[in-house]
Amino acid sequence: MRTAVDWRDGCLEVVDQTALPERLSVLRLASVAEVVDALRRLVVRGAPAIGVCAAFGVVVGLDERGGRDVAEARAGLGRVAAELEAARPTAVNLRWAVRRVAAAAGAGTDPAAMRRLALEEATRILEEDRAACRRIGEHGRAELASRHRVLTHCNTGRLATAGLGTALGVVYAKAAARHPVQVWATETRPLLQGSRLTAWELVDAGIPVTLLPDAATGAAMAQGLVDSVLVGCDRVARNGDTANKIGTYNLAVLARASGIPFYVAGPLSSFDPDAEDGSAIVVEERAGAEVRFLGGARLAPDGAEVWNPAFDVTPADLVTAFVTDAGVLRPPFADSIAGALRGRP
Amino acid sequence: MRTAVDWRDGCLEVVDQTALPERLSVLRLASVAEVVDALRRLVVRGAPAIGVCAAFGVVVGLDERGGRDVAEARAGLGRVAAELEAARPTAVNLRWAVRRVAAAAGAGTDPAAMRRLALEEATRILEEDRAACRRIGEHGRAELASRHRVLTHCNTGRLATAGLGTALGVVYAKAAARHPVQVWATETRPLLQGSRLTAWELVDAGIPVTLLPDAATGAAMAQGLVDSVLVGCDRVARNGDTANKIGTYNLAVLARASGIPFYVAGPLSSFDPDAEDGSAIVVEERAGAEVRFLGGARLAPDGAEVWNPAFDVTPADLVTAFVTDAGVLRPPFADSIAGALRGRP
Repeated sequence: MRTAVDWRDGCLEVVDQTALPERLSVLRLASVAEVVDALRRLVVRGAPAIGVCAAFGVVVGLDERGGRDVAEARAGLGRVAAELEAARPTAVNLRWAVRRVAAAAGAGTDPAAMRRLALEEATRILEEDRAACRRIGEHGRAELASRHRVLTHCNTGRLATAGLGTALGVVYAKAAARHPVQVWATETRPLLQGSRLTAWELVDAGIPVTLLPDAATGAAMAQGLVDSVLVGCDRVARNGDTANKIGTYNLAVLARASGIPFYVAGPLSSFDPDAEDGSAIVVEERAGAEVRFLGGARLAPDGAEVWNPAFDVTPADLVTAFVTDAGVLRPPFADSIAGALRGRP
Repeated sequence: MRTAVDWRDGCLEVVDQTALPERLSVLRLASVAEVVDALRRLVVRGAPAIGVCAAFGVVVGLDERGGRDVAEARAGLGRVAAELEAARPTAVNLRWAVRRVAAAAGAGTDPAAMRRLALEEATRILEEDRAACRRIGEHGRAELASRHRVLTHCNTGRLATAGLGTALGVVYAKAAARHPVQVWATETRPLLQGSRLTAWELVDAGIPVTLLPDAATGAAMAQGLVDSVLVGCDRVARNGDTANKIGTYNLAVLARASGIPFYVAGPLSSFDPDAEDGSAIVVEERAGAEVRFLGGARLAPDGAEVWNPAFDVTPADLVTAFVTDAGVLRPPFADSIAGALRGRP
């Protein structure tokens, strides 16, 4: 199945997510300028996918700009890395991936070796992402073996990663094992990642999906239409407090009110050992225009203020368990998270 | 201030809500066909506003079609009433208002008397609606005297009624008394009544309003940005279980989780003595297209199912109090509601 980012026949290929759900359009990015543009315009989004795309962006840059000798190639590498990092300055994965590939390439002693080392490192980042998705999927499949009607939020699938995703990775693993699974996908206002991306990728994969407004999630739980909630995470603190797409906290509170388990899926790399609890996590506020307009259509008057936080923080005590690439972490989370982080390579 | 429906200079005037928030456009409806069209196209929406519009629609019909004698006028009246009632067959207020005006007109012994009686009765319905809004506003202003940051849902204001509204009626009453008030308005997907209508009418009235996605309501409460939730109601059962716009239940659960009072405002006419509890209330499911499309833009793929319930039911134990035209009703609601209904004229 197509994922957000891939390296095929020596080319960086990305799914143009701005064209979804209307059509599946795959773009080949053949210059640094094209990679930067794709990241800026959200052609590629989702933290892991952004990282993988930028990693191969370094390879694209070396191919494009070359260098007659190692000094020229290294100077070019520095410029390429800086341009890529500036594409979305707050995306932690982007900077991390670019620096990792640039460091690997920098060890090369001639332009050809630098290009080879860059490609190897970018491929390693992609494979690590895919492997993490696979392991999350397997752990989640076992954990949710008796849960078939899964409510999810935002997009955490193969359009957010280079693999099959985190929360949706569990869904794909259930489907691959021929276990029954039915996904309830929230629209995820304001950017509608649920409608545009999650619904599209599940329909494309032949997995049954029902879309519902964010405001209808409580009714779906209260009426017993879903038996579990499974979301991704942007950042998890040491105590298990979880920052994720705005609306995640609502789902956690509503799940608790209906006695439904609330699972968070994500790689250990999303757990932040520097954040003691949720109060250490700063939440980005996004532009009011995302709420005031949709496409060209005006939805609200200019005179109204807009509050448009990108994330919310779900207190750890509302989380049933974390489904990670290192296994399922259970309460007390301070202990299980610390144990998992100690075991990290 | 302009309200959804008015009778001015012998004409039925309505605010074209389909043009909001782009522009305020007032239409004069001069024929039964125009009234039916306005109701069908949701130029006028909101149960009380629909009722008042249809009530004056009978007068418009008598003006348009007249009749040389009482027999002709009565036959015409029957056809007008039938056409108006068919405009939105499930709107209870519409049928109730049309029948009330038609019955009053039917007592007339000549066409002129019939027209006069119809106008008197329609005016009475409008005045009753305005008076109910005023009383709700006054009771709510006293009850929420110490609450200044009010989260509301959908549109319950002067675009939903012929007066200043139910939940928003309380906000207008606070503003008129020069009490501080700041409204947090949910978008209210899928039809965006919060963005399009509530934000517009509060901006127009000079009352500060902040719009937020439905999914951001939990974060707003958890962060202490709001100190109360105040919503309208479509139908309240004898025990206080409340059917209202989808998403109301979410707000009630989230308010409880943050220790914030949750108020329901509405006229006693919204309390249904035939519904023992919420299980007696059948919830309408609306077309998936409301979620799949916005304007002409496709938001989701065809292959995805859509679940789009119009309402949810909030259990009475999540309601702090009902703010009605007959006063504030407090728990135990079975008693306070029964008492208020007994006192109803």
